[in-house]
Amino acid sequence: MEPLLELDIHLPARSSRELLRALHAQLRAAIVDGRLKPGLRLPSTRAFAQALAVSRNTVIAAYDLLLSEGYVVARSGAGSFVSDVLRPAGARAPGRRRQPGDDGPRAPVPAPRAMPALPPPVLACDFRLGVPEHRLIRFDVWRRLSARAWRAFAKQPAGYARPEGQAALREGIAHHVSFARAVSCSPDDVLVTAGAQQAFDLLARLLVKPGQTVVAVEHPGYPPVRAAFEAAGAKVVPVRVDAEGLVVDELPPQARVVYVTPAHQFPLGCVLSARRRAALLDFARAHRAAIIEDDYDGEFRFDGRPHDALKTIDRSDSVFFVGTFSKSLFPALRLGYVVPPPWALASMIVRKQHSDWHCNLQAQDTLAAFIQEGWLAQHVRKMRRVYAERRAILLDALQADFGRWLEPVPGTSGLHLAALAKPGLDVEQALAEARRAQVGVYSLREYGTGKQAPTGLLFGYGAIDDTGIRTGLQRLRRILGGGTATGKRAAQRGR
Amino acid sequence: MEPLLELDIHLPARSSRELLRALHAQLRAAIVDGRLKPGLRLPSTRAFAQALAVSRNTVIAAYDLLLSEGYVVARSGAGSFVSDVLRPAGARAPGRRRQPGDDGPRAPVPAPRAMPALPPPVLACDFRLGVPEHRLIRFDVWRRLSARAWRAFAKQPAGYARPEGQAALREGIAHHVSFARAVSCSPDDVLVTAGAQQAFDLLARLLVKPGQTVVAVEHPGYPPVRAAFEAAGAKVVPVRVDAEGLVVDELPPQARVVYVTPAHQFPLGCVLSARRRAALLDFARAHRAAIIEDDYDGEFRFDGRPHDALKTIDRSDSVFFVGTFSKSLFPALRLGYVVPPPWALASMIVRKQHSDWHCNLQAQDTLAAFIQEGWLAQHVRKMRRVYAERRAILLDALQADFGRWLEPVPGTSGLHLAALAKPGLDVEQALAEARRAQVGVYSLREYGTGKQAPTGLLFGYGAIDDTGIRTGLQRLRRILGGGTATGKRAAQRGR
Repeated sequence: MEPLLELDIHLPARSSRELLRALHAQLRAAIVDGRLKPGLRLPSTRAFAQALAVSRNTVIAAYDLLLSEGYVVARSGAGSFVSDVLRPAGARAPGRRRQPGDDGPRAPVPAPRAMPALPPPVLACDFRLGVPEHRLIRFDVWRRLSARAWRAFAKQPAGYARPEGQAALREGIAHHVSFARAVSCSPDDVLVTAGAQQAFDLLARLLVKPGQTVVAVEHPGYPPVRAAFEAAGAKVVPVRVDAEGLVVDELPPQARVVYVTPAHQFPLGCVLSARRRAALLDFARAHRAAIIEDDYDGEFRFDGRPHDALKTIDRSDSVFFVGTFSKSLFPALRLGYVVPPPWALASMIVRKQHSDWHCNLQAQDTLAAFIQEGWLAQHVRKMRRVYAERRAILLDALQADFGRWLEPVPGTSGLHLAALAKPGLDVEQALAEARRAQVGVYSLREYGTGKQAPTGLLFGYGAIDDTGIRTGLQRLRRILGGGTATGKRAAQRGR
Repeated sequence: MEPLLELDIHLPARSSRELLRALHAQLRAAIVDGRLKPGLRLPSTRAFAQALAVSRNTVIAAYDLLLSEGYVVARSGAGSFVSDVLRPAGARAPGRRRQPGDDGPRAPVPAPRAMPALPPPVLACDFRLGVPEHRLIRFDVWRRLSARAWRAFAKQPAGYARPEGQAALREGIAHHVSFARAVSCSPDDVLVTAGAQQAFDLLARLLVKPGQTVVAVEHPGYPPVRAAFEAAGAKVVPVRVDAEGLVVDELPPQARVVYVTPAHQFPLGCVLSARRRAALLDFARAHRAAIIEDDYDGEFRFDGRPHDALKTIDRSDSVFFVGTFSKSLFPALRLGYVVPPPWALASMIVRKQHSDWHCNLQAQDTLAAFIQEGWLAQHVRKMRRVYAERRAILLDALQADFGRWLEPVPGTSGLHLAALAKPGLDVEQALAEARRAQVGVYSLREYGTGKQAPTGLLFGYGAIDDTGIRTGLQRLRRILGGGTATGKRAAQRGR
């Protein structure tokens, strides 16, 4: 049996947030004092989760913490291994001769928290979040436009391109943002970034004084943005979300940056109401705070005209409008954009240049042509219909068959929906059993912190088709409804 | 006449470093007190430089400072304009009604210094630095491999890729680095970055505690790296370079990061000698400092086997080896890599993920195939011959015809060479006159600071062919040799 599984690991009650901390701490202790030796291959997260009877997400998170701290190293394709070179300050790897000055790693800046690991897509019915439909993209057209971009590039003189982005793409973005989101902007107001994530990274460095700046984020919220701000040294304060979106009244008055997803709150899915929008802009004006408006899937609204963007009604130059092509096209494209207020544009361009000079040129040129020739608009129209239908199937089934355990959050847009857990539903157990049945659903709790984190399930429908949705839900229903541990416990606890 | 040119600008003696400061300060004052009104279009840098009889580089640098501070905005294709929205703290734009709370920009973090602007490539004979030959790249092959990468990508499931980079590319890099630079590394030790610049950006954030960490750089040195460290809040200390490279004895003992270009010092071109390499590694071990080894054009050595990389002889896990494909292929590819010491790898991968998730996938896959099928090696072999020949032409001409004014710095590698100015050569004037004659040469002084900055000329030969080199040098010779102001003054000052 693997040494790891022989370890005596004591874990608290499964539904407690302390679970991850306890698991991580005990593994780390075992590595530091040598019970887990350098070079040892850790068991797969799936096997370990089963052995410990915890959710796989918990094991993945524990491994990721150990990875970011250096206790574990990942070898591509081979798994995770106990590190044999890193000895954090104060720890002694048994058997290795100490060198003078060898007190630990040199990095004065603690590593930021690792991003939540994405489980590998091996499930038959995977309601993955954040991933759009890949199979309906006109890659034949894309290849043709890409070849055209390369031919043109070969004829140009060599050199670096402008950091703000290619002119044709900035025009396409400005046009899209003006018409689809009612944000009045010209091409010169646009900065092309390596996805929305880079926009957040640049914004964190523009707006945060390490150790001082208070940044308010939605709770529950989107972890990679929180991570970017924490990495920059911000004091991140989570603020509650209700049916109208961010509860603006509960913003800490010292917040100088507020991050919101007003078109489609991530992960709950509600829309920031009109009165909350006005209140948020008032707050920003009164406190001279910056608002980061993350419009991550604003194109996919299914019931008519979307709200205007916050930026549209911003009269005090507070709003940074961040968009992405990761959801309307594909995440691996790594192209997004930010439309900053005028006072920040020049500075952001300089920071972009310092980060990586400019975004991939051919990707920009190909995307610009794809937009300009109408292919993106056509694709978005098609996908809007596809996603609307998937959402309808999902919602109908949840309302018809899952009423005992789940309450879908109302909403009419995006690539996922959230369903709050009703009392009696053991979410972690349901997830683990679902995964064993080849069904991927996701825990809402992972996106919040502390006792107030809402619990429930998240269903992405970007990358799963109608059949997959129906099959997946049938299996989930069987798991909850009876015959399985989850079902029996739920039945015992009653409603 | 343009208002700007009516301004009463008093500038000190032309060859003084105070020139830029004086020009910038006077322009800024004119903007702040309203003599230059918001919305005014600044004259072209060329016209302004001619009117003021200063080098165009000086005007470009002044405009860039104003841009990064927000006094000036650039409109793509239309020029530079006095900003009409930014009122830095304390300044009042005349005629604009003050709003409550309107004390200035919100960004608490001062903008980093703008990168030195790249002059547009409009010159007939341009000895541009940092740009490799574009015309000899097998773009036909690249397009084919790129199409293949897109076809494969279309068939994969959607999602985000691994932040450390595509496996095939990491293998290609590890293989290249192991054989060509004698750095023992496996694919898992490699992190793919968006060019070397992103590697520096990530390193700055890993290694620098804002306001505290002392970073030593070469003087003269490579400005974008200095800028990245300054943006991260480092105390950057320039350290002298002599014929053996960085003068290691003069490193400040409190330096915890040392940035070097040991294979081909940028910009002087010397190679870090064996004894200096040993001394540098001793320093790092004794002071627990990190060394950043920038191997920006290490493939292009013309006289036999290159020195092993510093990383090869590093026994104390001090060295971060940074490489790029910008010089062996093309800068717009935006792909580079870093091989960190083991204690830093996991942390760097996490920071990469936070920055922009991962590098462009298709570019990675295409490059991996280009490497794996032998095209990159073939290209580098070809270019080595081409660059060696260009360098020989350049060096012969400099030694034969320019001995009165220039002393080429010895060296046998890279895509540029430096020539120190002998007394009597007015570099700024020579540059300005050369530019008027459609010849682009570059000032060595721009890469140093203060009075000790060496002066001279830099000749890149990456993007100029044999004919261009000969023509450019003939014109330059005429400018220096007589008949022009530069020539006459030089003749008058004598040897």
